[in-house]
Amino acid sequence: MRAKIVTLTTDFGLRDSYVAEMKATILSICPTAIIVDITHEVEKFNIRMGAYILASAAQRFPEGTIHVAAVDPEVGTRRQPLLIQTRRGFFVGPDNGLLTLASHKQGIIETIQITNHKFMLPKISDTFHGRDIFAPAAAYIAVGTAPNEFGPITVETVKPDFARVTYDRSVLEGEVLHIDGFGNIITNIGDQEMKLIHLEKTCSVEINGRQLTLEIGKTYGDSKLHQPLALVGSHGYLEIASNQSSAAEILSTKVGDKVRIKKA
Amino acid sequence: MRAKIVTLTTDFGLRDSYVAEMKATILSICPTAIIVDITHEVEKFNIRMGAYILASAAQRFPEGTIHVAAVDPEVGTRRQPLLIQTRRGFFVGPDNGLLTLASHKQGIIETIQITNHKFMLPKISDTFHGRDIFAPAAAYIAVGTAPNEFGPITVETVKPDFARVTYDRSVLEGEVLHIDGFGNIITNIGDQEMKLIHLEKTCSVEINGRQLTLEIGKTYGDSKLHQPLALVGSHGYLEIASNQSSAAEILSTKVGDKVRIKKA
Amino acid sequence: MRAKIVTLTTDFGLRDSYVAEMKATILSICPTAIIVDITHEVEKFNIRMGAYILASAAQRFPEGTIHVAAVDPEVGTRRQPLLIQTRRGFFVGPDNGLLTLASHKQGIIETIQITNHKFMLPKISDTFHGRDIFAPAAAYIAVGTAPNEFGPITVETVKPDFARVTYDRSVLEGEVLHIDGFGNIITNIGDQEMKLIHLEKTCSVEINGRQLTLEIGKTYGDSKLHQPLALVGSHGYLEIASNQSSAAEILSTKVGDKVRIKKA
Repeated sequence: MRAKIVTLTTDFGLRDSYVAEMKATILSICPTAIIVDITHEVEKFNIRMGAYILASAAQRFPEGTIHVAAVDPEVGTRRQPLLIQTRRGFFVGPDNGLLTLASHKQGIIETIQITNHKFMLPKISDTFHGRDIFAPAAAYIAVGTAPNEFGPITVETVKPDFARVTYDRSVLEGEVLHIDGFGNIITNIGDQEMKLIHLEKTCSVEINGRQLTLEIGKTYGDSKLHQPLALVGSHGYLEIASNQSSAAEILSTKVGDKVRIKKA
Repeated sequence: MRAKIVTLTTDFGLRDSYVAEMKATILSICPTAIIVDITHEVEKFNIRMGAYILASAAQRFPEGTIHVAAVDPEVGTRRQPLLIQTRRGFFVGPDNGLLTLASHKQGIIETIQITNHKFMLPKISDTFHGRDIFAPAAAYIAVGTAPNEFGPITVETVKPDFARVTYDRSVLEGEVLHIDGFGNIITNIGDQEMKLIHLEKTCSVEINGRQLTLEIGKTYGDSKLHQPLALVGSHGYLEIASNQSSAAEILSTKVGDKVRIKKA
Repeated sequence: MRAKIVTLTTDFGLRDSYVAEMKATILSICPTAIIVDITHEVEKFNIRMGAYILASAAQRFPEGTIHVAAVDPEVGTRRQPLLIQTRRGFFVGPDNGLLTLASHKQGIIETIQITNHKFMLPKISDTFHGRDIFAPAAAYIAVGTAPNEFGPITVETVKPDFARVTYDRSVLEGEVLHIDGFGNIITNIGDQEMKLIHLEKTCSVEINGRQLTLEIGKTYGDSKLHQPLALVGSHGYLEIASNQSSAAEILSTKVGDKVRIKKA
């Protein structure tokens, strides 16, 4: 049998022992697991950022990959731990919307509430379900435990409030989904939606109260140095970027800002 | 034979090539080793922080795990390289107290001074024993070398000066052991000691000159948003935390600050 | 067959999903690859820093290791993707000088332009060749694809403009190659060149307009606390360091600054 990949996405950071404790737990149950970090630098408690990064990365992994995510401001309270089986793999994490974007993309087969203590650590802390519930659940899936052994199927799960893209009178309106480490402004406006407005060489963009006319490029080097441009990025979303500098700084933009785009 | 896990705990950071050089050395000697980072973000030269993080993580790893640690302000001077065999695994690192907390928790079988050049890199730099001495020692343990081949048994090792917890007239006094990435204030007062003061719903805490009455919670979400509370964290120590914010910032607290706790 | 090691060196940072997407791509093609991060914290677009870190780490890895590097300000423009076979392994990355230092150190056998779409992802973005071209090329090498299947041999590649060390009238002149995470100032003056000036216990160093007489040590602890000293570091280059503090801060030094050294 091919070794199972288990990925980790958290807001725990890399300074403390938390991530290593999750890995230790996984390897104690499934010694052959191949553990891959997606990121541990999700902004603390930012479920939407975690959901976006998880969804961006998860679709690239081979079939059967098990994704564990923990961005969990309500750890230890009433929110449920979930195991979602999709057409391509598995997701384990809190029922707070974190898993929704990635699991929907893959096609959900069923969603299970993790209630069976047999697949948790013997002593469960109230503050660290990533180690005590999510990591063992992923490891037990990796060794072949059937999903329905973990608990009952559920249909009521928390939906994240991702803004929808609207199209009205030749204007697409969306919002800033993510600012990446290069300062690229990644919006929730997808390449399919972009086709509705039939852009050619330039476009008119309104962001954070500013009106800009931007060139449309294929890559960051298509504009002059430090010059903003619009392009469809590697995940298929409209990005506003700047050649070798941070578009987010230049345009004082942050996650959640509204973005409107139309023909120039 | 099950593949051996080798963990790494250092203050090297992730920007430079140092950590990768240690991994390259380990994989050159033991190609099947499973290397797991505990952290490389220990505050530079902060042996106590390294000792605490190593001890928190090490107990979670399977039997036979080999832990390498390098927080080593005196690299290349007279301090000795050590190999400690415990009831659950092995620790390799400098004789400066870094390994003490974790190895004592597991029960020390014997402590060996690494002196045999056969198990070091052919050329040993004076500035990078993590790569030239500690990493190869761990890898040679992983391939089955007997501990007593590395050098003589020693009993004289450096003791770290971790503050002890005192109990006097219904007051527990300890100190701040660690501030984690969420700003949680982790003290050295353990859950067993906490039982001495018979707390109920609240407690009285003196920290950094401030007197606070705090609710006692089970998890971070048990207080109002941005409201400090006291709880026993996932490693079994008293923590002062704040719901979705940094208690350390709110209370201007740093590692080493005294903490006194009693009934409210 | 021994599992192949694939290393990654980028300026992508660890916050976004980019690094994980590269790893997912590699594991999709070569499930047994052992992936080792060299660093993802190269300063954005700093090709020379990337080249130095890659060269420092690469020489430590076992024979047959495949190194992928992506510091790529001109991604998606005319610069070519390269595959370099050396006497010890393989390098994959952009033709912008990033691979030169490391591959020359190992002895280049041949350099190939990656042009064969059979070994790229089916859909190639213009902004993320690390995932779409470099990662799959490395993975196909790992599963045994012959280098000449990737494209034509080339001899014209971009040379990075690393400053040379000069020796004139008993003075060695070089420059600052790298400031590491400890604030150690690493120059491009090698241990062989140092022999030309026959230093004894001290040396005279001019850096950033300052004239210093420094003790020559073997390790950081050889000077008084917070006192700068000169030493040959673990990669064989002259370093100016300071015992438990940042020499770069103390001397206000940055990468590229000229360094002159002679007998005191």
